[in-house]
Amino acid sequence: MPEIEAVLSDIAAEMAARADRGDVVTYIPQLGKVDPRKFGLTIAMVDGRVFCAGDADEAFSIQSISKVFTLTLALGKIGDSLWQRVGREPSGNPFNSIVQLEQERGIPRNPFINPGAIVVSDVLLAGHQPREAIGEILRFVQFLADDETVFIDHEVAASERATGFRNFALANYMRSFGNLEHAAELTLGVYFHHCAIAMTCRQLALAGRFLACDGRNPATGHSVVSAERARRINALMLTCGHYDGSGDFAFRVGISGKSGVGGGILGVVPGVASMAVWSPGLNAAGNSRLGSIALEKLAKAMNWSIFSP
Amino acid sequence: MPEIEAVLSDIAAEMAARADRGDVVTYIPQLGKVDPRKFGLTIAMVDGRVFCAGDADEAFSIQSISKVFTLTLALGKIGDSLWQRVGREPSGNPFNSIVQLEQERGIPRNPFINPGAIVVSDVLLAGHQPREAIGEILRFVQFLADDETVFIDHEVAASERATGFRNFALANYMRSFGNLEHAAELTLGVYFHHCAIAMTCRQLALAGRFLACDGRNPATGHSVVSAERARRINALMLTCGHYDGSGDFAFRVGISGKSGVGGGILGVVPGVASMAVWSPGLNAAGNSRLGSIALEKLAKAMNWSIFSP
Amino acid sequence: MPEIEAVLSDIAAEMAARADRGDVVTYIPQLGKVDPRKFGLTIAMVDGRVFCAGDADEAFSIQSISKVFTLTLALGKIGDSLWQRVGREPSGNPFNSIVQLEQERGIPRNPFINPGAIVVSDVLLAGHQPREAIGEILRFVQFLADDETVFIDHEVAASERATGFRNFALANYMRSFGNLEHAAELTLGVYFHHCAIAMTCRQLALAGRFLACDGRNPATGHSVVSAERARRINALMLTCGHYDGSGDFAFRVGISGKSGVGGGILGVVPGVASMAVWSPGLNAAGNSRLGSIALEKLAKAMNWSIFSP
Amino acid sequence: MPEIEAVLSDIAAEMAARADRGDVVTYIPQLGKVDPRKFGLTIAMVDGRVFCAGDADEAFSIQSISKVFTLTLALGKIGDSLWQRVGREPSGNPFNSIVQLEQERGIPRNPFINPGAIVVSDVLLAGHQPREAIGEILRFVQFLADDETVFIDHEVAASERATGFRNFALANYMRSFGNLEHAAELTLGVYFHHCAIAMTCRQLALAGRFLACDGRNPATGHSVVSAERARRINALMLTCGHYDGSGDFAFRVGISGKSGVGGGILGVVPGVASMAVWSPGLNAAGNSRLGSIALEKLAKAMNWSIFSP
Repeated sequence: MPEIEAVLSDIAAEMAARADRGDVVTYIPQLGKVDPRKFGLTIAMVDGRVFCAGDADEAFSIQSISKVFTLTLALGKIGDSLWQRVGREPSGNPFNSIVQLEQERGIPRNPFINPGAIVVSDVLLAGHQPREAIGEILRFVQFLADDETVFIDHEVAASERATGFRNFALANYMRSFGNLEHAAELTLGVYFHHCAIAMTCRQLALAGRFLACDGRNPATGHSVVSAERARRINALMLTCGHYDGSGDFAFRVGISGKSGVGGGILGVVPGVASMAVWSPGLNAAGNSRLGSIALEKLAKAMNWSIFSP
Repeated sequence: MPEIEAVLSDIAAEMAARADRGDVVTYIPQLGKVDPRKFGLTIAMVDGRVFCAGDADEAFSIQSISKVFTLTLALGKIGDSLWQRVGREPSGNPFNSIVQLEQERGIPRNPFINPGAIVVSDVLLAGHQPREAIGEILRFVQFLADDETVFIDHEVAASERATGFRNFALANYMRSFGNLEHAAELTLGVYFHHCAIAMTCRQLALAGRFLACDGRNPATGHSVVSAERARRINALMLTCGHYDGSGDFAFRVGISGKSGVGGGILGVVPGVASMAVWSPGLNAAGNSRLGSIALEKLAKAMNWSIFSP
Repeated sequence: MPEIEAVLSDIAAEMAARADRGDVVTYIPQLGKVDPRKFGLTIAMVDGRVFCAGDADEAFSIQSISKVFTLTLALGKIGDSLWQRVGREPSGNPFNSIVQLEQERGIPRNPFINPGAIVVSDVLLAGHQPREAIGEILRFVQFLADDETVFIDHEVAASERATGFRNFALANYMRSFGNLEHAAELTLGVYFHHCAIAMTCRQLALAGRFLACDGRNPATGHSVVSAERARRINALMLTCGHYDGSGDFAFRVGISGKSGVGGGILGVVPGVASMAVWSPGLNAAGNSRLGSIALEKLAKAMNWSIFSP
Repeated sequence: MPEIEAVLSDIAAEMAARADRGDVVTYIPQLGKVDPRKFGLTIAMVDGRVFCAGDADEAFSIQSISKVFTLTLALGKIGDSLWQRVGREPSGNPFNSIVQLEQERGIPRNPFINPGAIVVSDVLLAGHQPREAIGEILRFVQFLADDETVFIDHEVAASERATGFRNFALANYMRSFGNLEHAAELTLGVYFHHCAIAMTCRQLALAGRFLACDGRNPATGHSVVSAERARRINALMLTCGHYDGSGDFAFRVGISGKSGVGGGILGVVPGVASMAVWSPGLNAAGNSRLGSIALEKLAKAMNWSIFSP
């Protein structure tokens, strides 16, 4: 097995030098201001070692990666009854497509596309004020990362609210089928805020480590979810974690991952490590361009595919 | 680790007793005659041990499972240029949907849905007569299974040809976009015949073992494909191997698999085992109902998920 | 030519006796309370004669029929530049489908399906408060009907606002493509109110008479629109006036018409008459079941098809 | 009323001078060879007068215009039971779309899009050899035009057969739903041949005159179809005769019409005239670009809209 530090610094150096960095998202104005030259990478081994490179300690907007954490919370809250309101299949369509919702009568394909995550937010809102639900999500992520400095960027949340017409469309559309229990404004209040959580690569890799460890935090030994649930979340990340680029990510990289339009990706190799990469420019499918490439190189160098012995 | 023989016989006994066996496919008349009470299961460990239960030595029509083998052959023939003609994403649609083909200008989503496999057949036909291409595929499967008794059921092939209007539609449709090089009749001649390959669970599990062993046949040490290619085929099986039930199979079972409407499923756990199950009744997504359940129980009992440490 | 009074009373008698009245719409709760046995019919001849039968002087919710009047107003306001924001083709889909909006980047197919009419409302809102725009529409309809008792049923408008999630979805969706200039709340405020206009058959037939008279009010001689514009509005009613039942209505009835889910239909035979029918029960395409049949019988008896000499 | 000869020669002169002629179709190779400068126009008045301009006596491939004649024949053969196999609604999709066929289980939207016309050919084939059915269609068109020189261009038919993969796809697709009684080869043999009928503008205008005359040939007084059927065919031409440009044609031109990719359009103004125009270049919707414009100018100059008094 190669030396992990050497692999990491090679990849970081190569990524820093590349010019083909993709385009920073612009439909959320606040995110359009991020410097496309940023690149950070953290690997959190299950044995407790943590390796970082580049801008690994700079916070970025985790966006859809937060859907892994809200899904985990919602499953803890209502268990498998969640699957009556959300599917578990890859969508085969862009993350904000509304076509499938019409054909499938308001039931989103999976919890990682926008409408699915909005339903998850709706579940977390039940019995709470939006402010409370948002607070619960943030505290859960802080707990997972074991770091109370994880915060919500309210400017990003406000930016999304002001321009998120597509998400208002999706929410109202699902409500017309009875698959949203709260007013779109309230549910999207929760949604926009958890998407605006800001984390560093280091924090994100640590927060995802329970998925590499049968649902337990290896530092404390505390169980976050059952081993079976951790396994299933990993499966969903593999099949649905990169929108309509999920198949390609599985094919090229071969590990479970969840991307966000802020340019971050959380990766999981069960029994080995969790990892977080950040490069703001996106590819055509809306996933971090250099982030995907960095994880592909890392997985190949370390032989970390879940599809090989 | 539990005793594999005991697990196997428990599962076989439970499956034999179940009444909810799903429905045998009827749109291929010849397949409609199969006895729905059949159930076979074989596990081929990478260490060479082979375990069987039930009707594991009775041949059945492997149907779409053959697409794993034709894909392997076609990649050997033209390499990654295949991906210019076929995608690598889950389709999110039934196996014979033509809608996506229109939207995506004749490029099928992946090589495991019908149109994708038809393109693969077209690749294998290049420079050959259909009879030769069919012979090459059969010999390849016999070689993988190390068993020359694997055969093509010509009655099944004729039955599919006589009623396969949807496949003729798909083939002509792709040809209208220039993504089929041969007349539909010829390419489908190859396609219908490889779908009509008949194998036992034992043969099938052995034929798929190279996918669990980094591309090598562990019995002979010969390399069938590179380790990277084996890994990538496993990834495609995971994301696309069960049509629009692929996400659910990954979620529940957690291993790479490819199903066929004959009621068979080939499963792969890299570094551990390949396995084949057969129960003719299908669930709503067109995958073996009891076969899926048997693999779910097996994977759970043996802790074989690729998504856990 | 048959005696029109006799034809009219025969049809009214037959319709009163029929049991197959369709189902009253329920998704707008206020409309669900209407008595399904109601039936009214008015014919306003271009020569000034007016014939009535049944409940022709009872007000009902004209719903989508109002879209003929708002389209007329919007064309008067911004002319053919409207067609940069709305198409002129039959949609081939239900009235509230969102699929086409995705494929066609936020441009609705025609001004008579919901999203198209919402764009028209957005046009009428420009430079105004919603209250002013609503007032302008109401006064225009009163002017056309020459009857100041035409009113807006505010309970119906409130009922639609409280349950119109699908329309909120459509509006927000178009806004995400930049095809809505005002907040969804404001534009839909206008939309829900003009849909809630209440009119009698008599008022409605008179209000539509300019379309049968080259754009002029035959009573006063005043021009409402140019002859060309009247002709074109008639064409749009013919091809798009009955949602995805438009082709069938043209085939069976053979006159221009616009239906509403309140059970009304406005019909136009250029040079001959305008007419209004009301029967609250709807057919599968969302058009008045007995209303369609009554107009079919009327057109046949009077030989009023626009497709015959 | 203006002098028809003057209007006609003005239009012909203007059309001859225009450079924006659209593109000649190329997917049927034989049609790609036609000179794009051709322009012909014939008006056949119901009083028996016939006016011609330009290349009105040069034969061209009528293509989809033939669908008006095969529909008429099929309705004569099996009556309204045809509508169990074909719909009567505008498709809202391109002429060769297969998407709707999947959603609507093999029932084409209307008899003028390709799949609908293929079903009509299948009806005409029942009980016959393809050669006989083709002969019957040709003789019917010759009878309507009262001209035995109307012929089938066998090179065009062969050209379509050799490249018509999309139509083979549509036919096989419908057959998979049981909506085609004969093998695709046979039915398409009929279809390709009637699309390859060659006619002059003069012949075509005369052949369509029964539609302007309540179903009767005004020269002989013989009835071709009932008045109701003529009216209904006119309605279908209006709503569905120009593929997904039908709404626009109704809006701009305001008469019933059926176009073909050979650049011809048959127009009908009931009680007034039938007319045929030919200009080979097509617009984006696949209809004759200058042909549409010429009919728009003609209808406007003569005030021939069916939507005005």
